[in-house]
Amino acid sequence: VRTQDGIVAVAERGGSWNAIDDLFAEAPRETGARYQPEEVEFLAPVVPTVILGMAHNGSHADRAAPPQAFHKSARSLAGPGDAIPFDEGAGRTVVEAEVGIVIGRRARHLTKENALDAVLGYTVCNDVSAADQSPLDSFWTQTKNGKNYSPIGPWIVTDLDASSLPIELRVNGERIATASTADLARGIREVLVYLTRWLELGPGDIVMTGCPGTMASVVPGDRVEAEVGGIGVLANTIS
Amino acid sequence: VRTQDGIVAVAERGGSWNAIDDLFAEAPRETGARYQPEEVEFLAPVVPTVILGMAHNGSHADRAAPPQAFHKSARSLAGPGDAIPFDEGAGRTVVEAEVGIVIGRRARHLTKENALDAVLGYTVCNDVSAADQSPLDSFWTQTKNGKNYSPIGPWIVTDLDASSLPIELRVNGERIATASTADLARGIREVLVYLTRWLELGPGDIVMTGCPGTMASVVPGDRVEAEVGGIGVLANTIS
Repeated sequence: VRTQDGIVAVAERGGSWNAIDDLFAEAPRETGARYQPEEVEFLAPVVPTVILGMAHNGSHADRAAPPQAFHKSARSLAGPGDAIPFDEGAGRTVVEAEVGIVIGRRARHLTKENALDAVLGYTVCNDVSAADQSPLDSFWTQTKNGKNYSPIGPWIVTDLDASSLPIELRVNGERIATASTADLARGIREVLVYLTRWLELGPGDIVMTGCPGTMASVVPGDRVEAEVGGIGVLANTIS
Repeated sequence: VRTQDGIVAVAERGGSWNAIDDLFAEAPRETGARYQPEEVEFLAPVVPTVILGMAHNGSHADRAAPPQAFHKSARSLAGPGDAIPFDEGAGRTVVEAEVGIVIGRRARHLTKENALDAVLGYTVCNDVSAADQSPLDSFWTQTKNGKNYSPIGPWIVTDLDASSLPIELRVNGERIATASTADLARGIREVLVYLTRWLELGPGDIVMTGCPGTMASVVPGDRVEAEVGGIGVLANTIS
C-alpha cells in the first residue's frame, strides 16, 4: 500500500493493516506501523517477475485440449483503480475476471502433492486483452501486453481453499457474468504442475488461472469490477 | 561483473574495467574502482524485466509473413559460462546465436526515426529452445523458458551500427554456421517499431533479433560459442 511513509507491505489483522518486513517470509515480522484502510492506497500486491495466463481453461470441455499458457509482460502490471487505456487501433478490448495464484517461493517440477506449498495466496486478476489481435498473432504478444493490461489486487488472501470460489464480472455496476473456479478445466494444482514442468516460478509471480466466461467487451469510460468471493473486488476504469 | 567487492557495473576504458554508478545513466559516473578482466567474472550484463525473441526473422523470405515476437521468461536469464541443463524429456535442445538489443530507456510507440534512441547497445544472445515442443504449444511457452535458456553477454557494446554484423555459431570449436544481421528479415529499427506498438519496453529489456540460420541441436557436454563481430563471444556448455 502507498502511505504517508511511502510504499509499505502490510498484513491485515482484525481490521488494522500492520506493516510487515517481508511479504514472502515464512512468518513476516510486524514492524510496528499500523494503518487504517481509508488512509492508504492499495497497489498491485506484488511486483511479479513472471505473469502467466492459462489459455482455454474456462470450462470442463477445455480438458479436450492440452493445457497451454501465455506470458503477460511484467510491464503490463497495474493495481486497483488504475486506468486501462483503450487502444484505439487494436480492435475490441476485452476484460476477464479471474483468480490469480500468487507464488511464494522458487518452484520447479511441482507435483500434485506439493504444488500448494509454492502458493503464497490468491488475488483477483483482470486479464485484459486486445481480443481482435489473437487471430493475427499466434503468440498473443499483440493481445496481452498493453499498458495496464494486467491489473491485480486489491490484496492477497492466504489460507484460502481456491477450488470453488465464486467469480463475478460487473461493468458499470451491471452484473455481466458469474462463475466459479470449480468450472475451470484444470484447477490450481494441475496448473502449477503443468507450468513448473516447463519453467521456474518464484516469489511474486502471478498465474491467471483462466476465464470461466466472466468476460466483456469494454469501451472508454467503462468501470470494470472483478469480484472473487473470499478475496474481494478489483475495480478499474477504461480510459 | 562479480568482483571481490561484490557485483559491480563496469565500463571498459582502454583495457581497464572501471566501476560505474548507473548503467542506464546518460553519462554514467565512474566511482573509482578499476578491475582487470582476468580478476572478474562476467555475468549477464543486465537483469531484464522483459525478454522478447523475434520469430521467423532469420531471412529476407520471412518478410512474406507479418512480424511476430514471443516472450522468454526473465527467470530463464543466464550469463557467460553458465551451464544450460539438457531437458531429457523435452526432445531436441537447439541453440541459436543472435544479436540482442539492450533497451536503455522506457519506450512505447517508437518510430523508425527515433527507434535507435531507445537502444543502450547490443549484446550476444543464445536463444535456447526445446525445439520439439514448438508444434505442441502454439505459444512456445514450453519451448522457450527452460532453466538458463536465455544466456546473454559477455558485455554490451554501445555506439555500434548493428545493421551488418557477422554472426557465427560454434559447437565444440567447430564452426556450424555463419551469417549476418543484414540477413534478418526486419532490422533493429523495424523490430523496435513493431514491438513498441504492442508493449512497453524499458531499461535492461532484451530483444533477441532472430536467428539467421546460426543454430544447432546440442547434447550434454557440448560447448556452444555464439560470436558476433564487433561484440564478442558468448560461451556456454550443455550439462
